[in-house]
Amino acid sequence: MSVPMSDGASLWSDGSFSFAVKHADGRARAGRLSTPHGDVETPCFMPVGTKATVKAVAPRDLADLGARIILGNTYHLYFRPGVDVVAAHGSLHGFMGWDGPILTDSGGFQVFSLGDTRLIHDDGVEFTSVYDGSRHLFTPALAVEAQERLGADIIMCLDQCAPGTLPAPEVALAVDRTTRWAAACLQAKRREDQLLVGIVQGGVDEHQRRRSAADLLALDFGAYAIGGLSMGERGDEMLSTVDLMDELLPRDRLRYFMGIGDPVGVVAVIGRGVDVFDCVLPTRLARTGTAFGREGRLNLRNARFATDRRPLDETCDCYCCRHFSRAYVRHLVNQKEMLGAQLLSLHNLRVLVRLTEDARAAIRAGRFEEFAGEFTMRYSAGGYRE
Amino acid sequence: MSVPMSDGASLWSDGSFSFAVKHADGRARAGRLSTPHGDVETPCFMPVGTKATVKAVAPRDLADLGARIILGNTYHLYFRPGVDVVAAHGSLHGFMGWDGPILTDSGGFQVFSLGDTRLIHDDGVEFTSVYDGSRHLFTPALAVEAQERLGADIIMCLDQCAPGTLPAPEVALAVDRTTRWAAACLQAKRREDQLLVGIVQGGVDEHQRRRSAADLLALDFGAYAIGGLSMGERGDEMLSTVDLMDELLPRDRLRYFMGIGDPVGVVAVIGRGVDVFDCVLPTRLARTGTAFGREGRLNLRNARFATDRRPLDETCDCYCCRHFSRAYVRHLVNQKEMLGAQLLSLHNLRVLVRLTEDARAAIRAGRFEEFAGEFTMRYSAGGYRE
Repeated sequence: MSVPMSDGASLWSDGSFSFAVKHADGRARAGRLSTPHGDVETPCFMPVGTKATVKAVAPRDLADLGARIILGNTYHLYFRPGVDVVAAHGSLHGFMGWDGPILTDSGGFQVFSLGDTRLIHDDGVEFTSVYDGSRHLFTPALAVEAQERLGADIIMCLDQCAPGTLPAPEVALAVDRTTRWAAACLQAKRREDQLLVGIVQGGVDEHQRRRSAADLLALDFGAYAIGGLSMGERGDEMLSTVDLMDELLPRDRLRYFMGIGDPVGVVAVIGRGVDVFDCVLPTRLARTGTAFGREGRLNLRNARFATDRRPLDETCDCYCCRHFSRAYVRHLVNQKEMLGAQLLSLHNLRVLVRLTEDARAAIRAGRFEEFAGEFTMRYSAGGYRE
Repeated sequence: MSVPMSDGASLWSDGSFSFAVKHADGRARAGRLSTPHGDVETPCFMPVGTKATVKAVAPRDLADLGARIILGNTYHLYFRPGVDVVAAHGSLHGFMGWDGPILTDSGGFQVFSLGDTRLIHDDGVEFTSVYDGSRHLFTPALAVEAQERLGADIIMCLDQCAPGTLPAPEVALAVDRTTRWAAACLQAKRREDQLLVGIVQGGVDEHQRRRSAADLLALDFGAYAIGGLSMGERGDEMLSTVDLMDELLPRDRLRYFMGIGDPVGVVAVIGRGVDVFDCVLPTRLARTGTAFGREGRLNLRNARFATDRRPLDETCDCYCCRHFSRAYVRHLVNQKEMLGAQLLSLHNLRVLVRLTEDARAAIRAGRFEEFAGEFTMRYSAGGYRE
């Protein structure tokens, strides 16, 4: 059910879920998603908890830094520890000790990005597990069943991810399969307390994106994801594709950009109507000793930080910045102490979470464009100072 | 200044420090150590923060689990990040974000246990740094100066650690040097706000222990450490040596057993008059996937934990046991997720901290012997169930 409101505001609801766009400022939106495990203010960053853990960060610390919804990867959980073990804990929430909302992906992305000797059939994809080399077939029905048993609040359709760098015929074929699989996922879905998200593919080809969006809209999903971007295509192609998605996707439905975590890119897609997004970037960078600084990235391995007593970012309110110096974090990173990755993960995640908090405030105040311009100018000022 | 009180109670104080034995129960003691960075109830376990970090545990989590004083290693800090960098942060407290009491060792233990081509002179020890192969000479004066600049509350004399497994002449020589170096450390000491601890050596040889204790007592330290134990000698030799130390060391001074972390051993030495102790065992075991269980150690890699939904210890109040199952911790350990080591470190540290809390309560209630007997029986019941 969808109720349009004044000033671009709207309310969509369906059983256990609702999504309200409360403020629009240009194309940027501030809203609220309600799920069985709580509400989420949007725009919102979702930390990635690949194998039922956001790497190096305990759930209490995730909550402390302001994360409200996290992501789990069905591919990894399917093989380790296995869906049965997770289900025996009630759901992924109980297994990983996170009682807020969770989103699981379908496993499709890893099937297409990990391992080799993949055989794509029209009814699913056959592949070799990276864990033990065994052969498996993922179908839409299996992806939905696995996600129903994992018990996340939001689950994803099995799709064929087609980066814009692929040849056009492959992108077209991926769009066809993505549509067919989306319909099969809807058909396979049994649980009423999970929100199934349809994924639009089509690379950076306008015709294919329009075709994919039309197909998915016809299936009437409660929320839509933009897949296949941030995968090696040019920046301007990525942004114009998001512009197109903003034009095509219904304004009352949640929009999820799959896989973006660079702060400048995040601000750009929020400005183009994206509500939620996820990325491994903040935690992955942390494990290589890199911090999101105030004016671009900081590589803590750099000798210039050896005696630097300032926090990573003097304006940051994260645990790391409130208590530790760059010199200390650099020492930890250089000595390969786990605490280095832990503190940098907390910081980088907080930077993205706070960026969404600031974006929400700016949207509500009707000054998003100014905020985005200032942020982008400042963050880009330092370049990659590594 | 020392004030004897009734019932084995006593108060020793000197400038910024005091140590009060408040309850004695048999030979076990419960007391309070006061330092410039706060008070510490004894018996007390000190987590080891080798390179300015208790591995995988953030300071706020250390405080949360009840740790009140931690240890840093001068050898490692001397080379990385260097004493200058730490001193530029005020002290080790400021550098590592821990504002409670800290104890630093002298560096001697690592000089004797790491690296090779060591040359022991009467005035110090020449060795090769494990960090870059450079040659260095550690003298008592240098060990004190380095520790004064690191700024811990409690600092240690440079000693020559002589395990009971060494030939008698070597143990005798180590006692001689330890006495000479202790006197030199006292002489070198400048700061009034640090407590310098004398270390008794002598392996498991009663004559050498008596000689070392007499030498050190003559120098009148404010606190005494028992060094050279828990280093491969037989258990009964270790315990009889602690018995002897209890007999020889002044009752009003803090006694520090260097390097014991096995719960049964901890209870045994508390029962023999030890006030504080440290060990890397809880965090090192954690990084190999091993937990202190209620009835002995648990190796979480064992397949029998794959579907075990119980916490590591149903009676434990640590963050890990309150929120996560053995199956989850096992999954993290098997997948080499950092959070596995983080959670196991929190748990193992909490087990030792809580053991000291329980021991203090038992001492105050006059039922330490009963407590120790029950604990030892239970913990030993499971054997090493790996």
